[in-house]
Amino acid sequence: MTKHFQRELQNIKKMILSLGAIVEERVQMAKTAIEDADAHLAEQIIKKDYEIDEMEVEVEEECLKILALHQPVAVDLRFLVAVIKINNDLERIGDQAVNIAQRVEFMTEQKPHRFCFDYDKMAQKAQIMLKESLDALVNLDVDLALKVCRMDDEVDALKHVAYDKIKETMEGESEDLGYYINMLLISRHLERLADHATNIAEEVIYMIEGEIVRHGRLE
Amino acid sequence: MTKHFQRELQNIKKMILSLGAIVEERVQMAKTAIEDADAHLAEQIIKKDYEIDEMEVEVEEECLKILALHQPVAVDLRFLVAVIKINNDLERIGDQAVNIAQRVEFMTEQKPHRFCFDYDKMAQKAQIMLKESLDALVNLDVDLALKVCRMDDEVDALKHVAYDKIKETMEGESEDLGYYINMLLISRHLERLADHATNIAEEVIYMIEGEIVRHGRLE
Repeated sequence: MTKHFQRELQNIKKMILSLGAIVEERVQMAKTAIEDADAHLAEQIIKKDYEIDEMEVEVEEECLKILALHQPVAVDLRFLVAVIKINNDLERIGDQAVNIAQRVEFMTEQKPHRFCFDYDKMAQKAQIMLKESLDALVNLDVDLALKVCRMDDEVDALKHVAYDKIKETMEGESEDLGYYINMLLISRHLERLADHATNIAEEVIYMIEGEIVRHGRLE
Repeated sequence: MTKHFQRELQNIKKMILSLGAIVEERVQMAKTAIEDADAHLAEQIIKKDYEIDEMEVEVEEECLKILALHQPVAVDLRFLVAVIKINNDLERIGDQAVNIAQRVEFMTEQKPHRFCFDYDKMAQKAQIMLKESLDALVNLDVDLALKVCRMDDEVDALKHVAYDKIKETMEGESEDLGYYINMLLISRHLERLADHATNIAEEVIYMIEGEIVRHGRLE
């Protein structure tokens, strides 16, 4: 492997981690925007999403350039294919932050918030999954990636609990149905966010072990 | 390019189109299951999803094998990277069919159905997008792929109309809120299905033109 090629791989790693850091920041902003019913913050998230979109395209173009120029094999090939897919998941997590932010406009009127499901727990778990999937990528840590995959079931369970609680609350109160519908949609966005973090973790495992572990193969 | 390599590319194309055909079939089954409140059909969709998962892993493994063995460049490299991503989107469309099927169990009690939004129009548009994105792939048809990208906005608009109508209906009827919540979730699953079809169309354009057209670059 040439030094030049090595440098390019390092550069890709840096790029995907920068994207990861920005996406993590946006998710935190979305969580705060919901908690504080902060329409201004929500607007920032929506407006700045183009930055994530642009970074995604840059990362992919860089990966394709390296694939074409250096025709890597084995572990380097797996690394580049994994980055192409992780890149895609990060961009979609950014979209979930936007989707959550968009809910704020339907909810700002109803301060202070009545979270009728365990929003905080669900949001925190999704955030931990995102953080740890990226840590697993940096440190090539299969065990941490597996932990993220396992957490996905917990978020799924929280989604079901949220559905029941929100439905129950709606049945008890005929007013403000729009508010509760938006609560439900937020719980779904958090679940999708966690799904994408799980995809990232699975890609990390594939990259390290060369085995595709999707669809519960490691359970 | 060797004859052997050429044959392997043809084989990949066949594999991804077979997967596409099965996914199309599952989406049609999901549509029918909702329309007929057919719990048995819904169960079939859920049970058979592992077939799609397995095919996805096979396609990806085959792509990686070819990338490693033949180290293709230019158009062949773009084709393989596009297939890896299209493969992923097809699997996720299969997941949407499962998600829609899962709604049936919440809705079978309420026959005949009261669709309070234009379910048929939305489902049909999403199906057309899936079909045409695959046709664009087979025929390397950029115009058709662009048509699919444009239709995504129509489905988005239908999603907003669905939200308003469902919310209005819920406000008018305090009973059966669970039924309407599930209607709303179905509209979201259809929208995500259409999103994935758009991704496929964008990949087709990238494959043919070598330009990444995501995030509205061609608008």
